[in-house]
Amino acid sequence: MVDGKISEIHGWAATKPGIQVEPWSYKPRPLGPNDVEIKIDYSGICGSDVHTILNEIDGNTMYPLVPGHEIVGKVITKGENVTTLNEGDLVGVGAQVYACLRDDCKECSRGLDPHCPHMVFTYNGHSHGGYADAVRVDANYVFKIPAAIDPVYAPPLMCAGTTVFAPMLRKGVKKGDRVGVIGIGGLGHLAIQYAHALGAEVVAFSHSPTKKQQATELGASIFVDTSNKEELDAVQGTLNYLLITSNAKSNQYNDYVRWMDYEGHIITLAVPEGEMRFTPIDFVMSEVNITGSLVGGRNIVKQTLDFAAKHNIRPIIERFPMAKVNEALEHMHQGKARYRIVLEN
Amino acid sequence: MVDGKISEIHGWAATKPGIQVEPWSYKPRPLGPNDVEIKIDYSGICGSDVHTILNEIDGNTMYPLVPGHEIVGKVITKGENVTTLNEGDLVGVGAQVYACLRDDCKECSRGLDPHCPHMVFTYNGHSHGGYADAVRVDANYVFKIPAAIDPVYAPPLMCAGTTVFAPMLRKGVKKGDRVGVIGIGGLGHLAIQYAHALGAEVVAFSHSPTKKQQATELGASIFVDTSNKEELDAVQGTLNYLLITSNAKSNQYNDYVRWMDYEGHIITLAVPEGEMRFTPIDFVMSEVNITGSLVGGRNIVKQTLDFAAKHNIRPIIERFPMAKVNEALEHMHQGKARYRIVLEN
Repeated sequence: MVDGKISEIHGWAATKPGIQVEPWSYKPRPLGPNDVEIKIDYSGICGSDVHTILNEIDGNTMYPLVPGHEIVGKVITKGENVTTLNEGDLVGVGAQVYACLRDDCKECSRGLDPHCPHMVFTYNGHSHGGYADAVRVDANYVFKIPAAIDPVYAPPLMCAGTTVFAPMLRKGVKKGDRVGVIGIGGLGHLAIQYAHALGAEVVAFSHSPTKKQQATELGASIFVDTSNKEELDAVQGTLNYLLITSNAKSNQYNDYVRWMDYEGHIITLAVPEGEMRFTPIDFVMSEVNITGSLVGGRNIVKQTLDFAAKHNIRPIIERFPMAKVNEALEHMHQGKARYRIVLEN
Repeated sequence: MVDGKISEIHGWAATKPGIQVEPWSYKPRPLGPNDVEIKIDYSGICGSDVHTILNEIDGNTMYPLVPGHEIVGKVITKGENVTTLNEGDLVGVGAQVYACLRDDCKECSRGLDPHCPHMVFTYNGHSHGGYADAVRVDANYVFKIPAAIDPVYAPPLMCAGTTVFAPMLRKGVKKGDRVGVIGIGGLGHLAIQYAHALGAEVVAFSHSPTKKQQATELGASIFVDTSNKEELDAVQGTLNYLLITSNAKSNQYNDYVRWMDYEGHIITLAVPEGEMRFTPIDFVMSEVNITGSLVGGRNIVKQTLDFAAKHNIRPIIERFPMAKVNEALEHMHQGKARYRIVLEN
């Protein structure tokens, strides 16, 4: 049995609801034969970190909690059965750290490992996350960061990147498709880049006309100010895909259907408050599909990283030292992050 | 220019809202070079006939109106350009009688001819339907009835059959899939047969336990009484597809999502009153798709007939003489039809 090199992990934990984490240490689990120990260099802040800290997700937050599921660092120890990684490898960890991956698992055998009954989220369960100096994780959920990617830009690809790319891969977004993106933020600014790199024509929707230039630079061909009826009318019936990346509560769902081409796909990545309401006749006449998408499984995480490396897809980030994590969380909570935050050790 | 053989078509027309049609004649349009003239033997009654007669569909009914879009009869005359049909052929006509079918039509070129901007429904527009002794129709929307099918059973396949089979073909329902069917009626009893013949395991949902035997005979492996919590619980998370064929208003949409396997498809063929309401988190966690489906295009109509011939799929019908059409309409309107009605000339 290999021992880990770190006997105590020093992190930042939320101990009660509130935008506040505090120094907190824990003794890591024994290093299992399939585990690796990672010294963390960078940790992204995801919107769901804030929701979890605030106990806004079904009231299921288990305090104390070290958040962070966009982790990038170096392997410093590996368990005796780990063959795919070596000490010194630059690696990333996303929102999931375990699935059984057995051939007889109904979900894992179909590539649906995020739905495995034994699935473990990176934090808020059996393990702690990336607002820390180290972490131990099953090697199946530790991914090599391609050399082309400057490590500081890698964390947001681990969660936000896979979240936007997963439905594009699963639904088969391709050259010539028209892809709408609602919300130019942490998810949306990556969705524009991935869809553009797939050869799609991207339509960016935002209520902030000030984001037009940025959206265009990221790869959007068309920018629609959602308060401008003429601009909205111009795209009616044309979208093959529409990604909802904004958590803003909306009464526009029937409008979304009207923006779609026949048999198009509306995909919500966000979880807005309230219900989504649709009129049945709109479905029948348009044959539009509505669906949602969780994080991608391990095969999708790999594709997300490789595709980003190849097509120069990078998040726009703001950097904070780990010691200023509370300032960074407050910045995120106030909706000021442009567009993702990366904490640096 | 070929002349038609019939100078006056004798039909039954609705002249105002109400479950009532009356004898009414019209002079058919000149027989165009691509038209065929059909002497009608049988005409099915579709639920949408009743809605249209009652002017319940967006208030768009144009009286007088000869309903009927499940037409079966014999070709008695054909236009000079018609090469695919001959006099004496037994043929059917469904809910659509025209689309441009041009290669440069964005919809027709993708097999979406029901969405062609030049699409013509069989009645309530530029033409009249099948509650009559004859009809003239563009040959592209006249389909040969396979010899294996007794003609009296063919009418319901022209609309109800294509409506249930179209989404199965488009979504790729296959052997081993589990397909739920909500509502054992005109559409549902055909949906069970088509899904079963595709090799799927069919789960029939109904609030009428008396329909269990029938559903089983039609091919359902499992019958779920929708008022029985245990039976509902037993199918949670297992359906790959769910076809909503009942117009009953429902507050169960979130339940439907829970019956689905990950990435399953809920498809509404019916147009229930009110809104369909869903909770976004359910979409995200289940990655279930919701969509609707209109009638199938011409390629799907052909496949619907061929597949029914090959797999012995037949509607369960009640037969009425055309002269008793009002009695038949009343029977349908009261929800007593088991399960489709065919009028006979």
